[in-house]
Amino acid sequence: MNFFTLKFTGEKLILIDQTRLPTEELYVEYSDWREVAKSITDMIVRGAPAIGVTAGYGLAMAAQRAVKDGVDFDGLMEEAYEVFRRTRPTAVNLFWAIERMKKRAAALKGNSPAKIAEELVREAHAISDEDVASCKAMGKFGAALLPDECVVLTHCNAGALATADYGTALGVIRAASEAGKKISVYSDETRPFLQGARLTSWELMKDGIDVTLICDNMAGHLMKTRKIDAVIVGADRIAANGDTANKIGTYSVSILAKTHNIPFYVVAPLSTIDFSMESGDEIPIEERSPAEVTAWGGVRVAPEGVKVWNPAFDVSPAQNITAIITELGVARPPFKESLAALKKGI
Amino acid sequence: MNFFTLKFTGEKLILIDQTRLPTEELYVEYSDWREVAKSITDMIVRGAPAIGVTAGYGLAMAAQRAVKDGVDFDGLMEEAYEVFRRTRPTAVNLFWAIERMKKRAAALKGNSPAKIAEELVREAHAISDEDVASCKAMGKFGAALLPDECVVLTHCNAGALATADYGTALGVIRAASEAGKKISVYSDETRPFLQGARLTSWELMKDGIDVTLICDNMAGHLMKTRKIDAVIVGADRIAANGDTANKIGTYSVSILAKTHNIPFYVVAPLSTIDFSMESGDEIPIEERSPAEVTAWGGVRVAPEGVKVWNPAFDVSPAQNITAIITELGVARPPFKESLAALKKGI
Repeated sequence: MNFFTLKFTGEKLILIDQTRLPTEELYVEYSDWREVAKSITDMIVRGAPAIGVTAGYGLAMAAQRAVKDGVDFDGLMEEAYEVFRRTRPTAVNLFWAIERMKKRAAALKGNSPAKIAEELVREAHAISDEDVASCKAMGKFGAALLPDECVVLTHCNAGALATADYGTALGVIRAASEAGKKISVYSDETRPFLQGARLTSWELMKDGIDVTLICDNMAGHLMKTRKIDAVIVGADRIAANGDTANKIGTYSVSILAKTHNIPFYVVAPLSTIDFSMESGDEIPIEERSPAEVTAWGGVRVAPEGVKVWNPAFDVSPAQNITAIITELGVARPPFKESLAALKKGI
Repeated sequence: MNFFTLKFTGEKLILIDQTRLPTEELYVEYSDWREVAKSITDMIVRGAPAIGVTAGYGLAMAAQRAVKDGVDFDGLMEEAYEVFRRTRPTAVNLFWAIERMKKRAAALKGNSPAKIAEELVREAHAISDEDVASCKAMGKFGAALLPDECVVLTHCNAGALATADYGTALGVIRAASEAGKKISVYSDETRPFLQGARLTSWELMKDGIDVTLICDNMAGHLMKTRKIDAVIVGADRIAANGDTANKIGTYSVSILAKTHNIPFYVVAPLSTIDFSMESGDEIPIEERSPAEVTAWGGVRVAPEGVKVWNPAFDVSPAQNITAIITELGVARPPFKESLAALKKGI
């Protein structure tokens, strides 16, 4: 990969600024954990797994800060857990990573703050490394489902930029390409934040994978008039029954895929599955600022004062999903059973 | 209405520049018929009925020009018919208006060019006046189908800006509002040209009608989570069987509406129905420049060199359409019979 999403130097976290892509490939250094939390809210970094990894490093940095400043370690960590918890509501990997860091800190109770901080850095690295390994495993499982020559549609960016590296949905596409399959990708531009236009096209072009950009509203016409072999998307949170929250628009695409008899694959690590939620109805959906819809790069595209509804995610029901591809294997309907079976392997 | 789409002064055609809205309400004067043709291609004016009316005035201006310059009248008119025919391929009202002007000129054969030019101006005015009368008639027929309190979704701009005045889909919304119904509108922003964000929101806000802007990919989530009583759209060309070509994305919305059991209404004058085409498969679909997708107002939103597919229209099959509302009444399935019956009334 000739770019990276995030890198921890031991003291600083470096993030590629995803709000600047594709016109600028800018890497930002963070030495303040609170700024790291803000980078999640501001979508400098986005994508469920990448948010989880970033939170892991951010919490490790909070621990390092507590040691350096000699302040109350547990007090600062409690604050940090809370600050990261409040960054974004929908992606469950964030909460999963925070819980994992919290448990690790609790297990180390009794050690010196310096030792705990050191171990938390190690834990954050582990989360990051496991994320990449997961992506590669999902890639293999997913690639096996695709024909040797295929055309796929993806929505949003579930790529290297949404993970520590390699990607979930785009990991499957990369793995298929690496396995010698001839794969072409259509990328929904994914309004309002344009992750498809700005990020997915950019990272696939960087990798030399054939990609064609379309507007979100062209997906139906695409499926009707051109042969599409599969839709492949990531996920921000999956309920125990398989209902999947993902970037706004995914639900519409799942309906279009079903109508056109096109397999609809969700690719996500098991950390994305929230077994505490029975169905997708319980998943909180973030609503973001109208400004994301009414202007881009300072250019207004809607009248001043217009009302806007800007939900950032939606839920695709399990019955629209052909399979959920995880790092431990492929779950098929009924998902309640198949996901629970995979969970036992964790 | 506190703005106008087009106005002919007797010599000049004034158009509101729809590429500048909503940030600028700019009226452009055209005295050259070739520039009028270019205004259609460049989408200064757009919307199937408005394009037809504009072509009518443009041809009248060509006739006036031939008289003024004392050149071969029939030769110049033949050229003008051809120039207007080539402006845009999908909307049939354009070809309908050109044919109507051509027939009128043919019927006047033998008169002086000055007399023919005068009559062609009259004919263009008639097309324009009839368009407004049609819109008001469609408005009444359509409004009767809506409950007294209702929430509707519309796609693109089938408003006053897409017609000589009042609008087709938005004409129904205006008529419902004028009839005292409490109507709220969701407007798809309609990428890539953003007719919903820029034009529909703008003209409904100008009229004091409640409007909320969403991105195209939010329509599915909207239908699932909020009560939507109807989808109301315009049309660029309707085949004899009811298949309807309209702005790209309409097909996806028609599937979403069907999936959520929401009535899907197409509003269009009979001049939009192309009885020469048996089904929508025959309707030519314009593909426009990638630049419309990759940048807005000079701000790039996709990598340099990315491949883009930019179809400007799609076809919603008759089976997704609840009713087609015309100026002579409401056609219900099977449309082949109901549309043919309405045609007899023309």
